[in-house]
Amino acid sequence: MDVIDLNCDMGESFGAWKMGSDAEMLNIVSSANVACGFHGGDPLVMFETVSRAKENGVGIGAHPSFFDVWGFGRRQIQGENPQDIEKMVVYQIGALQAVARAVGHRVGHVKSHGTLANLAAVDRTTALAIGRAIAALDPELIYVVMAGTELERAARELNLRMAREIYADRAYDDSGNLLSRKLPGAVLHDPEEAAARVQAMVREGAIISTSGKRIPVAIDTICVHGDNPAAVAMAGLVRERLEQAGIAVRAMAGTVN
Amino acid sequence: MDVIDLNCDMGESFGAWKMGSDAEMLNIVSSANVACGFHGGDPLVMFETVSRAKENGVGIGAHPSFFDVWGFGRRQIQGENPQDIEKMVVYQIGALQAVARAVGHRVGHVKSHGTLANLAAVDRTTALAIGRAIAALDPELIYVVMAGTELERAARELNLRMAREIYADRAYDDSGNLLSRKLPGAVLHDPEEAAARVQAMVREGAIISTSGKRIPVAIDTICVHGDNPAAVAMAGLVRERLEQAGIAVRAMAGTVN
Amino acid sequence: MDVIDLNCDMGESFGAWKMGSDAEMLNIVSSANVACGFHGGDPLVMFETVSRAKENGVGIGAHPSFFDVWGFGRRQIQGENPQDIEKMVVYQIGALQAVARAVGHRVGHVKSHGTLANLAAVDRTTALAIGRAIAALDPELIYVVMAGTELERAARELNLRMAREIYADRAYDDSGNLLSRKLPGAVLHDPEEAAARVQAMVREGAIISTSGKRIPVAIDTICVHGDNPAAVAMAGLVRERLEQAGIAVRAMAGTVN
Amino acid sequence: MDVIDLNCDMGESFGAWKMGSDAEMLNIVSSANVACGFHGGDPLVMFETVSRAKENGVGIGAHPSFFDVWGFGRRQIQGENPQDIEKMVVYQIGALQAVARAVGHRVGHVKSHGTLANLAAVDRTTALAIGRAIAALDPELIYVVMAGTELERAARELNLRMAREIYADRAYDDSGNLLSRKLPGAVLHDPEEAAARVQAMVREGAIISTSGKRIPVAIDTICVHGDNPAAVAMAGLVRERLEQAGIAVRAMAGTVN
Repeated sequence: MDVIDLNCDMGESFGAWKMGSDAEMLNIVSSANVACGFHGGDPLVMFETVSRAKENGVGIGAHPSFFDVWGFGRRQIQGENPQDIEKMVVYQIGALQAVARAVGHRVGHVKSHGTLANLAAVDRTTALAIGRAIAALDPELIYVVMAGTELERAARELNLRMAREIYADRAYDDSGNLLSRKLPGAVLHDPEEAAARVQAMVREGAIISTSGKRIPVAIDTICVHGDNPAAVAMAGLVRERLEQAGIAVRAMAGTVN
Repeated sequence: MDVIDLNCDMGESFGAWKMGSDAEMLNIVSSANVACGFHGGDPLVMFETVSRAKENGVGIGAHPSFFDVWGFGRRQIQGENPQDIEKMVVYQIGALQAVARAVGHRVGHVKSHGTLANLAAVDRTTALAIGRAIAALDPELIYVVMAGTELERAARELNLRMAREIYADRAYDDSGNLLSRKLPGAVLHDPEEAAARVQAMVREGAIISTSGKRIPVAIDTICVHGDNPAAVAMAGLVRERLEQAGIAVRAMAGTVN
Repeated sequence: MDVIDLNCDMGESFGAWKMGSDAEMLNIVSSANVACGFHGGDPLVMFETVSRAKENGVGIGAHPSFFDVWGFGRRQIQGENPQDIEKMVVYQIGALQAVARAVGHRVGHVKSHGTLANLAAVDRTTALAIGRAIAALDPELIYVVMAGTELERAARELNLRMAREIYADRAYDDSGNLLSRKLPGAVLHDPEEAAARVQAMVREGAIISTSGKRIPVAIDTICVHGDNPAAVAMAGLVRERLEQAGIAVRAMAGTVN
Repeated sequence: MDVIDLNCDMGESFGAWKMGSDAEMLNIVSSANVACGFHGGDPLVMFETVSRAKENGVGIGAHPSFFDVWGFGRRQIQGENPQDIEKMVVYQIGALQAVARAVGHRVGHVKSHGTLANLAAVDRTTALAIGRAIAALDPELIYVVMAGTELERAARELNLRMAREIYADRAYDDSGNLLSRKLPGAVLHDPEEAAARVQAMVREGAIISTSGKRIPVAIDTICVHGDNPAAVAMAGLVRERLEQAGIAVRAMAGTVN
């Protein structure tokens, strides 16, 4: 039987401010990317998120970011020293590992957030910096990467376990890259369309571009969102269609090279 | 041969701001209490501090605080939920443990900072909250306590290793408690006086009050400061006088009950 | 015709995090207490809030707080120097005055937030510190106070314009003080009950206690909330009942002594 | 008699962390660029700085930054909406104006900080955003600009008073631009050389490049630094040499177009 992971960003509330539909998403996904306090999340939110994930049998991963709470890790911060990025990521993973230990769960993966993720996809030194942080802490940790990017190359180079990710709601071009958000149709809004496409991509082991082209890639995990009710509904349908096609949804296992 | 630990707060710089004479103090003390980002310190400062401590053969401990960077963990924050304090401390210890792992060092102790420390000394639930965080992460961690306070009682109750601490530069009353900072003579400024008193307290296994009274206590570690040149000089003299008396300065080992 | 003000806290979003039902509340109230960045709010949120208030003909006031974004100004911070509180409040009022100037609106009042407000109600030096900040910046600014508290005494002592406030959803005891939130019935949840009581209090010029006792006070403004749909509904009904009773809702004017 | 202004960044301490030699620099310069809390400074530091400036007869200006305390406004933050930058700058100027009002001083100029300043020098929309913030608050405010940059063009376009600035310790190329910090000799370390060059530039009304070329420009203010003892010494000598040449040091007046 085919198996796939569904991952979602969670635990991005901060202090008095709530964000996301974590409770609902924990019934849909198999992996939670948990904010570690640098763009969202705080110790209280992290404990809550990890505890709920454990109760729901959902795997957890660190979701490290540039240090930019106000900017939610989305401001374009450039010129950072890769060594410094490594240190920032070590701190964040470690904080979550401690929370997981206290709760009786275990950090299984690392997926970078926001502009750190965008930068790492195209910049080798950043992708390697995140990878070195992972390697320094736990060689079993899975590095979540996008196929064909510097993230994937860094994971291979460092011999890390990795999980290749596709997006349920983003359009791909014929090279297998994400269509820029500036272009029309970059984001899928129709749940049925998105769910059917995900099902097809997983079954065929290929990214399906907007022109219908198939780009064969290993797919280990699918990113869904929980920002709003429409996103939650889409994520739910993605899971439903996968299961209807006989594809089981399970926390990512990671593959080595 | 008698053995004692000297501990000092370190790594309290933040971003562009420097604080403390860490480089000099690492030549004097055997244990560094490392700020974890909640009152000072950041991932870069923590890596630097832990790396330098390792090079100098200095042990490290987490120095957790209330979440209050601007107030440097010194604002009186009250009414916090003890469960929340536990989570805050778990996060901070975990972040430092990860830094230590990446650097090849090991977190050996935990000493709370500022108003969190002041509160824990007199409030049982706070002292226990910190203790539970320690117990949840690593039963080998040493809880630094002041003899006769709620900190010591919490360490005993939770069966944690502990290190009993005295202050090199603070006067004690006849009950063995610190003289309030509001009273004259609460802080010792004469390095020779402080060093001689420390030497006597360690040799006699007793706190020496301002009236000269001896209050027998186990003494495992002595807190010195590095805030300013005078403090550094005093700390250096404390070490010198201890060694002259045949007392070796070594990172705290901790005792159980 | 009788006239009364309805005030509500607004602009408490921060960065990526949203809070409150500001758009709806701007259709209900006549005065907005605008967060100034120390517990919520940021320059972008403040511009948005002040612009929308202006469009809706709603007056604005500064809503200063202890410096505690993570704690949302609700952590009990004690022992602050009153001089420092004054400086903190000056900064926050000034930032909002500049935003108002840029937008073409005007800061008309100051109402302290969270634990700063709680402290000022019972602590003379804190109430005076806030008052001095107001006096230093604009003698026309209205100090929002609760009748019978240190806030009111400070406003009188400094000869400031003031607006006496009652709460639409809080119960009062026979001394005219708020019933502690720890007691049952401290918060009114029934919109009709709250709206009818507000109407009666305004018409009679008296606080009505839980026992039905009337405590005559000048009432200039009524605090309503917009935290959740039920609060918004209650606020809307409060306005409706006031207008049905021939009481006009208008931005606070303030009275001197 | 010739007149020139000396300006220096000040008030960049934050909470428990000290920075700069403000007390000494206030005896040397005629204008202080005061941090407003977004990269350094806080209400307490701002009051202290403005009060000391007033006592020393030193003019003050706002020193706005990107919102990045940890990064000290030096992280390269890109892609910000110019409208948002304008709002950020309004907030910061307004906060300082209020502090000045409370102290009995007056904000006379605005000089942007760090990467915001670097960006504004080359990016028209950023330079205009800062300029619009100035125009919205006080048309008398002087916009500190570098001759030949987008800053100067923005000041002209918005018809703002401006002060053209040169650096005492930075080398210039033959186009009158700063030599990149990456090139050798970009920063002058010899106080006598720097002071003599400043004196010559002011007397000749020209930037003097590393090759000795004169590029005629209006010079209204000279930027000096107080980060370290060497910088303070250089600043002191700059003032001494200027006065020896009969050039009076006075707070900037600003010129229109």
